[in-house]
Amino acid sequence: MKRKYLMTPGPSPVPSLIREALAKEIMHHRTDEFIEILKETNEGLKYVFCTRSPVLTFASSGTGAMEAAVSNFFSAKDKVLVTVGGKFSERWAEIAKAFGLEVIEMKIEWADTPKAEDVKKMLETHKDIKGVLTTLCETSTATVFDVKGIATVTKDKNVLLVVDAISGLGQDALATDEWGVDIVVSGSQKGFMLPPGLAFISISEKAKNFLKNSTLPKYYFSINKALKAYEKNDTPFTPAVNLIVGLKESIDLIKKDGIENMWIRYKKMAEATRDAAEALGLKVYSKHPSSSVTAIVSPDGINSKDIVKKMRKDYGISIAAGQGEIEQKIFRIAHMGWINEQDLIMCFSILEKVLREIGYANFKVGASVAKLQEVFYA
Amino acid sequence: MKRKYLMTPGPSPVPSLIREALAKEIMHHRTDEFIEILKETNEGLKYVFCTRSPVLTFASSGTGAMEAAVSNFFSAKDKVLVTVGGKFSERWAEIAKAFGLEVIEMKIEWADTPKAEDVKKMLETHKDIKGVLTTLCETSTATVFDVKGIATVTKDKNVLLVVDAISGLGQDALATDEWGVDIVVSGSQKGFMLPPGLAFISISEKAKNFLKNSTLPKYYFSINKALKAYEKNDTPFTPAVNLIVGLKESIDLIKKDGIENMWIRYKKMAEATRDAAEALGLKVYSKHPSSSVTAIVSPDGINSKDIVKKMRKDYGISIAAGQGEIEQKIFRIAHMGWINEQDLIMCFSILEKVLREIGYANFKVGASVAKLQEVFYA
Repeated sequence: MKRKYLMTPGPSPVPSLIREALAKEIMHHRTDEFIEILKETNEGLKYVFCTRSPVLTFASSGTGAMEAAVSNFFSAKDKVLVTVGGKFSERWAEIAKAFGLEVIEMKIEWADTPKAEDVKKMLETHKDIKGVLTTLCETSTATVFDVKGIATVTKDKNVLLVVDAISGLGQDALATDEWGVDIVVSGSQKGFMLPPGLAFISISEKAKNFLKNSTLPKYYFSINKALKAYEKNDTPFTPAVNLIVGLKESIDLIKKDGIENMWIRYKKMAEATRDAAEALGLKVYSKHPSSSVTAIVSPDGINSKDIVKKMRKDYGISIAAGQGEIEQKIFRIAHMGWINEQDLIMCFSILEKVLREIGYANFKVGASVAKLQEVFYA
Repeated sequence: MKRKYLMTPGPSPVPSLIREALAKEIMHHRTDEFIEILKETNEGLKYVFCTRSPVLTFASSGTGAMEAAVSNFFSAKDKVLVTVGGKFSERWAEIAKAFGLEVIEMKIEWADTPKAEDVKKMLETHKDIKGVLTTLCETSTATVFDVKGIATVTKDKNVLLVVDAISGLGQDALATDEWGVDIVVSGSQKGFMLPPGLAFISISEKAKNFLKNSTLPKYYFSINKALKAYEKNDTPFTPAVNLIVGLKESIDLIKKDGIENMWIRYKKMAEATRDAAEALGLKVYSKHPSSSVTAIVSPDGINSKDIVKKMRKDYGISIAAGQGEIEQKIFRIAHMGWINEQDLIMCFSILEKVLREIGYANFKVGASVAKLQEVFYA
């Protein structure tokens, strides 16, 4: 009879409305009916990505679109700057190296954001940098990077700003066109409230100019092929039909809330989560916390993986431990997509119980829950 | 009130049992529960692919696994032989060229199969050929290629035999290990009775030896990364969770029937379909017809696209026209996955009606349906 609750930073819960759409009878992807759906999702994605440029959909996980961003706009030996401050920004460097690019890693302290002035200095030192690869929400440290600031530096240069917004999109503000971001990559299983299996990539006019110079091999993730099909609301290869049918529902939900209202709502949820952690005497890990996920430092002497395990095993609540070198130091609670204020209250009510059971009791029962209630409903 | 029937060679219908599995609440992919499912699907895929070697699962459409077969086992300038006799075997040549391989196209008449002795001659002429890229069911011409014969030629050479079995697997016999096929690629939306979004690739011991020599760039489709994760029943990137939950159901269904029984059943369905077409005075297009799909030549003076359009628009039945140069010459009826004998009877009963309406009436009402009944139930 144990109920399960998903509070991880992806996959995040899928509303029943969308799950029902996923279960619909499959339709052929070359029918007017499906083309109409693709037309709607293509338009809707522009709204979610805050851009007037095309947003392409691939059948893959988000990493596939990250690869597309590297293999279609750059060539071997091209110099790119990667802002590295966690596991997912490291992935940018890995992909760029796998494709033979010359990678300058601008290492930042984990939990911190890259600074626009540092990016500016690097671009002045290395005049031949062709792209800056950065991250909106660095999921592993629950940190939001200063994409807006970095964009002010790249905007007027012949340098592409490429942003991994896989976990951040929908929660952390990202005004793609307004800020001047060239390429935004995302995936279906976070803010979009869908199962994993779709990847998205937006392509600015400036980015389009880089396409023709790229000499790296590509086929499945060829942006040229995908753009050509996109103009006819088609896809070069069989699309993930039922996920796209679900995407239509997802976009409808997002439109109803309004993307900018969502940024405000998740920001408040993130603030409340930090306040709740502090009400338990715990520290927030990130110096620039994201609106998508919160990383909380485990109490002294307690392995965060034990907290995560107990939450899942005894109470059915999935949260995440850390990754890499901070795996056992932090635990992470997501507030993205379908996760709401009540879920956080439920989650903290159990977290309090688990912390006590595991030997940390330096707080009054109900302290975190009351804090959440105050912020949300007072 | 119009009901819809999907008789196209992919996507093919998804049974409600599987659609219900797709609609389940999403689970986290790093839980014991999901790892257990992945373990089962990994084992089950070996059964379906008739191999003891690993079969990897990617979140992508089938073309992604075709790309993986090229970019992981070969290098730029490597010579490969491609047996080209339709739109999907052409894709092999396209991908290999996109990755800078030297492609020898062995062109065969559309509707025909490549001959093993011709492949043998090519391998004798070009001693440096490293791979033969061929196709099990060439969907565009509804032709089954002689994979078994070609395997006898490549088996004892240091040449990889790579087979696109995206549409053929499950219907057209493919005894991977027994015949000596090195790499088999497939997708979820045909014989597996799932929506599109998963790709599969099997890797023989011989193929594994080719992995370390490949210098082409890859990341998302890296077989090395995927194999490393596979050993722990994990995936390098977020898997398409709900499709894999569906895959478990699909494999259970396939196991219940038995893969070899399925080959017999679909073969009979294909024969019956050809007999039914001939009972209407129509010609079968392929010289080596597949068990997965049948291509029927449109009556003189009738554009096959008109038949397809009328079937869909007036009667809700989706069949497929041709592709490429034979687009308007043939129409194709699939018998794969969940499509069964009764579906064919239903389909032909309407096809007779549509042919009459469109001006071809050179048959007795019921001729094709009676023929199907005879073959299936007499």
